Amino acid sequence: MSDLTRGVAVCPGTYDPVTFGHLDIVQRAAGVFDRVIVAVVEKPVRKGSQTVFSTEERISFITDEVENLENVQVKSFGNLLVQFARENAATAIIKGLRAISDFEYEFEMNQLNRTMDPEIESIYLMSSPNYSFLSSSGVKELAMFGGDLSQLVPGRVAKRLKEELQR
Amino acid sequence: MSDLTRGVAVCPGTYDPVTFGHLDIVQRAAGVFDRVIVAVVEKPVRKGSQTVFSTEERISFITDEVENLENVQVKSFGNLLVQFARENAATAIIKGLRAISDFEYEFEMNQLNRTMDPEIESIYLMSSPNYSFLSSSGVKELAMFGGDLSQLVPGRVAKRLKEELQR
Amino acid sequence: MSDLTRGVAVCPGTYDPVTFGHLDIVQRAAGVFDRVIVAVVEKPVRKGSQTVFSTEERISFITDEVENLENVQVKSFGNLLVQFARENAATAIIKGLRAISDFEYEFEMNQLNRTMDPEIESIYLMSSPNYSFLSSSGVKELAMFGGDLSQLVPGRVAKRLKEELQR
Amino acid sequence: MSDLTRGVAVCPGTYDPVTFGHLDIVQRAAGVFDRVIVAVVEKPVRKGSQTVFSTEERISFITDEVENLENVQVKSFGNLLVQFARENAATAIIKGLRAISDFEYEFEMNQLNRTMDPEIESIYLMSSPNYSFLSSSGVKELAMFGGDLSQLVPGRVAKRLKEELQR
Amino acid sequence: MSDLTRGVAVCPGTYDPVTFGHLDIVQRAAGVFDRVIVAVVEKPVRKGSQTVFSTEERISFITDEVENLENVQVKSFGNLLVQFARENAATAIIKGLRAISDFEYEFEMNQLNRTMDPEIESIYLMSSPNYSFLSSSGVKELAMFGGDLSQLVPGRVAKRLKEELQR
Amino acid sequence: MSDLTRGVAVCPGTYDPVTFGHLDIVQRAAGVFDRVIVAVVEKPVRKGSQTVFSTEERISFITDEVENLENVQVKSFGNLLVQFARENAATAIIKGLRAISDFEYEFEMNQLNRTMDPEIESIYLMSSPNYSFLSSSGVKELAMFGGDLSQLVPGRVAKRLKEELQR
Repeated sequence: MSDLTRGVAVCPGTYDPVTFGHLDIVQRAAGVFDRVIVAVVEKPVRKGSQTVFSTEERISFITDEVENLENVQVKSFGNLLVQFARENAATAIIKGLRAISDFEYEFEMNQLNRTMDPEIESIYLMSSPNYSFLSSSGVKELAMFGGDLSQLVPGRVAKRLKEELQR
Repeated sequence: MSDLTRGVAVCPGTYDPVTFGHLDIVQRAAGVFDRVIVAVVEKPVRKGSQTVFSTEERISFITDEVENLENVQVKSFGNLLVQFARENAATAIIKGLRAISDFEYEFEMNQLNRTMDPEIESIYLMSSPNYSFLSSSGVKELAMFGGDLSQLVPGRVAKRLKEELQR
Repeated sequence: MSDLTRGVAVCPGTYDPVTFGHLDIVQRAAGVFDRVIVAVVEKPVRKGSQTVFSTEERISFITDEVENLENVQVKSFGNLLVQFARENAATAIIKGLRAISDFEYEFEMNQLNRTMDPEIESIYLMSSPNYSFLSSSGVKELAMFGGDLSQLVPGRVAKRLKEELQR
Repeated sequence: MSDLTRGVAVCPGTYDPVTFGHLDIVQRAAGVFDRVIVAVVEKPVRKGSQTVFSTEERISFITDEVENLENVQVKSFGNLLVQFARENAATAIIKGLRAISDFEYEFEMNQLNRTMDPEIESIYLMSSPNYSFLSSSGVKELAMFGGDLSQLVPGRVAKRLKEELQR
Repeated sequence: MSDLTRGVAVCPGTYDPVTFGHLDIVQRAAGVFDRVIVAVVEKPVRKGSQTVFSTEERISFITDEVENLENVQVKSFGNLLVQFARENAATAIIKGLRAISDFEYEFEMNQLNRTMDPEIESIYLMSSPNYSFLSSSGVKELAMFGGDLSQLVPGRVAKRLKEELQR
Repeated sequence: MSDLTRGVAVCPGTYDPVTFGHLDIVQRAAGVFDRVIVAVVEKPVRKGSQTVFSTEERISFITDEVENLENVQVKSFGNLLVQFARENAATAIIKGLRAISDFEYEFEMNQLNRTMDPEIESIYLMSSPNYSFLSSSGVKELAMFGGDLSQLVPGRVAKRLKEELQR
């Protein structure tokens, strides 16, 4: 394995939409790895297949916020995560852990992914306390009722959420 | 803040339908606070938007059971919980905790609500052991198969559940 | 209660499809009880009512794998689990526990079932570590993306999953 | 394996002292298995090696309460649990699960025991809700301050606890 | 029960020493209840009986920090918590919840206390995210190694911790 | 921050003694980071200050097992972990997560460490299922009773454990 490929990590998620919690993890990952690829799931499977925002818009929201991070790139993927990681010469998958239920789900995915490809290691960062309560679904719920999103997502995302969801 | 408003608490839920576990929490809340408002969510967001019973019937089920509690009122709401609390001069939101997954969900909602309105405090009561296994969705599942609901929900609710759900 | 009925246990699940984790539990249950009935839920309620495989095919997948276990039988049921257990002279329901979320769900079901029929005892086996990450829904997700299922489900099940689900 | 040995289960614990929660598990185990041996740890290792009551007195407390259960026996052991189980022709170890922390500890012990002897299966019963909060250490704490123990432990145990512990 | 006694809550703990997390809970409790009594355990039982600071000094640390809260008082107690609550005409015990393990311990204590005195209700506040990682034992550990305590405990407490513990 | 220091991670623990679970984490960390320093706590604080093996012997056990990993080094430390990390030009602390209780403890330590030094990131690997039940304290308990340790710790460690602990 060459040194060049050693430090590439993939940071996967649906990001529908990206929150300040996601961005905190990406930024911290960028401090540990040589290069970080934010990997946007094109069509989520488990939690219902309908996203509020298109893959393009979800990518665009993130791109806006990481342009000051030189070693971060944003891409989408529609295949198996370990395949995407391998195609991008990544040796690690990086995820944020907020709570016990995240831990359980990630433990399961971790083992399934290792069954598929044992050479790709999944590693985890703990959420910052200020974002430990923050999820895309919670943000969407608040948006429906006109709640204040300014501490939760970037301004452009807040504006688009209200356009799409406010009742 | 006047003394009159100090002790008002809101007890929110979908109550589709109310169970003996919900009623135990309402009764105990009524022993701690000057006034308790049971707040029925008109249209739930997270767990699918379809309820078995209309808002009116869900309110009616609860009203029947709390008429002996002088300081308890039942209302519905369709906006943000913290807005409803403020409109009703409540300074606290009160919820029951049954299990770890309740704890995690409530921790998340608690922080989101405090981000929206830091003056409204969320407080929690632990479920009585006899009701720690009881949920509206479990009751509906039993009703589908004709299970005995007499220890789980009031008689009128049991009758209506069987009319609506029994296969 | 006669000695003959003492050792019958029911092992319920949706089994959509059966995994090596399920089969490990069935095999271990067959070592503890005189007779084990694998009980396939005809129409699941909680987690969406649509299965990938028909009841017949789900039964057939399991039957193939347990034919070497003389004291194991496979049946389907469409009524309340405790009624099915009673009809089959079972005195125990046996389940595998993989994780905290299993534990919470099973604790709830256990108490509801005991409310319905206190004479039928639910008992639990801990998943083997090698299968502690394995669920039917995880397997289906991998199948959609063409992942390798050979360590997770029997060969015939893997083949049929790919036919039904691969995108 | 002969039919005669099939239904023997060991129910291990420190029982310092036995509570109504322990006795509920023993009684329910006696309904599932042909024979149950309550196995009293002579000298606990993990949680400090000092017990309040001698092995003899801990056995005597339990013996008093199970004399009406014909298929239950009480013994002490000072070796590895799986060795004790094997010496007593038991094929199962049976434990009660009250909470998440019990689950984690038991998961660990389960795997260690299976590493030692894969033929002895550990199986679990969920605590009855009324006893889900009850532990020997909680009871001892209450006894120190003169709390009412009548709903928690047998009368003779309550009396001895107060003699030993009340400040 | 007169209106005057309705709003008294007891906030128990060992407070060895008080942290900013404890003080956040006390302050929020003082916003919900008419009167809050911070109740300092004289001699802790469960987690080892030795405190770093005397009861007097632990009370003094808290008193310094709550003198601007008119409806908060600090007392010590050496008997059963529910007895102390009753002697002080309190109808509620108030605790902070930080994590799953707090939840489990508090669920147990809650039920034991209700067994002792069902009229005293235990209620819970969720820790603020900024203090969700903060415990007296963690602070003491940092103090031993000369860590910076300025964001964790009041200045006077930090100074005394270093005097007592720094290696 | 120079590229040279980027990939150094510290892998802290008491390692009393090292298990195959620890060694699995170290080996996987060595695949992700340029250099890994196994950091042996000289004098543990939280869980009782007495170790079975001296710091020298604990280091020696690990050194034996990692000599084939070129980018792994073993050292001891007696100060604050973040200070040790900084002195060794590490930018990451790496830990294994086995279970929910590990997660909670690590979440707490993570935030305390970030309060001390926000530039040092803590990252986590999930235990391999085969080692998810394995702890130094479990191994020591088995050693006391003469259990078979060959699947749990290296041979030399097993031999020394029995010499020190077997009753």
